Parts: sequence; structure tokens; C-alpha cells
Amino acid sequence: MQHKNLGEMHCPIARSLARVGEWWSILILRDALRGRTRFDEFRKSLDIAPNMLSRRLNELVEAGLLERRRYSERPPRDEYILTQRGREFRPVLQALMAWGNHHFAPEGASVMMVDSETGRPVEAVMVDRVTGLPLDDPRFKVVAGPAAPSRTVEEASR
Amino acid sequence: MQHKNLGEMHCPIARSLARVGEWWSILILRDALRGRTRFDEFRKSLDIAPNMLSRRLNELVEAGLLERRRYSERPPRDEYILTQRGREFRPVLQALMAWGNHHFAPEGASVMMVDSETGRPVEAVMVDRVTGLPLDDPRFKVVAGPAAPSRTVEEASR
Repeated sequence: MQHKNLGEMHCPIARSLARVGEWWSILILRDALRGRTRFDEFRKSLDIAPNMLSRRLNELVEAGLLERRRYSERPPRDEYILTQRGREFRPVLQALMAWGNHHFAPEGASVMMVDSETGRPVEAVMVDRVTGLPLDDPRFKVVAGPAAPSRTVEEASR
Repeated sequence: MQHKNLGEMHCPIARSLARVGEWWSILILRDALRGRTRFDEFRKSLDIAPNMLSRRLNELVEAGLLERRRYSERPPRDEYILTQRGREFRPVLQALMAWGNHHFAPEGASVMMVDSETGRPVEAVMVDRVTGLPLDDPRFKVVAGPAAPSRTVEEASR
């Protein structure tokens, strides 16, 4: 029920969370982006109960982030392939990885992104593609969009 | 218990989710980044039950994302101020907003980020600060970091 409420909110962040706002779902997407496709691969990687994994995979298929494909008829076995929508979730994971490494890895990073030409750790920053400026630049503002209800207009102008 | 398990994982994404992996917590952070600080402001904005809001605020304070400050002695009232760690969560929300607007706003965006000089919607992309290249560039690889357990080394090299 909470899922539905979130999904009906106008905010794009709330709507996104309605589709992936469970730890397990986000970790499944992480694994999928690292090339995992099969039930057993996810189960071993995540150490997750099979019924929970089934449920989360079904939700991700319903939300259009994964696509189910039969790869064996006998026995019947499916694999789970990222859709375009699922692949485009990657920046969220990149941002979570950068934030987690910065704040919650006091002993040093265990997984990190590096520039393979130099070995230097990547410094992830979100920018506008056209101007190249960081989104923190005061030039960028959060505003009400064309489909905004009146409450959103007030909020965005805060 | 699940929180603890996630936090003990080596993956920085799992560790991040242990701190903020609840919809409400992420929506509270969203509101805090829009300038809200007070219990009643969050409650009205999120339409959340007071006991749930208290619990989530306490967790965010414990995780070091918000700081509690007394602003009135009689009656006793606290406000919740973003810490540096909390402010640095912003790119995650920017990525969620971009993804949500792209995939879950069939009627058009209700909240969006624009370039205030031109009115053009921002095209959010995650880049490496030093080279300016998108993190999708094949030059960037996810690798095991200095604090990696052996299992992570195998995984990162996949």
C-alpha cells in the first residue's frame, strides 16, 4: 500500500522509490549492472532468502527494470536482463557508491571506481551535460514542471 | 537486524542503504535539502505519522546526516539541520530525480531542474571531476579497493 502511495506522489524521487525503494531491489540492480542475470547468482551474491529474491525480481520485472527470459526449457529456468530503464539506474548507484565510500568506509574503500589509465580514484560529480557545470551551481534551480499540481508550484519556489 | 547486516557488508552501496534505505528517510533528506528543518514541516510535507517521523529523524541523527538543535526552550522544540554528510547525499537525489522524470512521469515532469539562465531542463550526468568524462566511459572501472576482502576482489574483476 505504501508503494502505491509513493507512486502516486508527483515528486519524481518518490515515484522512483516506489519502484526501487527496497534495499534488496537496489542491491539486485547493482548485481545486474555487474553482469549477473541468474537466480542462483543473485541468491549467492546477496545471501538472500529465495522467496524474498523471487518477490523482488518479480517487482523489478513489473516495474520494467528487468526482463525475464527463458534460457532453459528442461528444467524451466529464467534469467533476468536489464532493460534500458534498468540500465539508466546506474547513476543512482554511482552516486550511492561515491557517498558510501566517502562517509562509511573508515578503513578505506573495498570497492571503488578508478580511472584505468592512471589508477586514480574517480571523483564522481553530477553535472549538466550541456554546460558541464555541477548541478550545485546556483544557476540550476528546482522548479515546478508542466505537470505540476498547485502544491508543487509553491514548494518548488521555496 | 537487516540494517546491521547491510551496514556490515563491504560494498559502499550496501553501507549507504543501511543508513538511508527507507523511503521515508530519503524523502526527509529531500525535504531537508529544500530547506525544511522542523518536525511539523516534515510531517505536513510528507503526510507521515508522527511516531514514524520521529523514528526516521532519530535514525538520521544517529547516522550523522542530521543534527538536532533546540530552537525553543518553552515549549521544548528541536529542529533538524543537515550535516556535511547529509548535504553530500544530494547527488543521489539528483540522480533519482532525473531517472524518475525520465521513466515515471508520462504526463510530464511535476518537479524538475532547469538552467535558470535559459529555462532549459538540466540533463544530469555523472562525470569524473578531473577528466570531465562520463562515468560510463570504458576508461572507468570498478575495482577492489585497499580494504577489500578477497571475495570483493574476485567480484570487482568480473
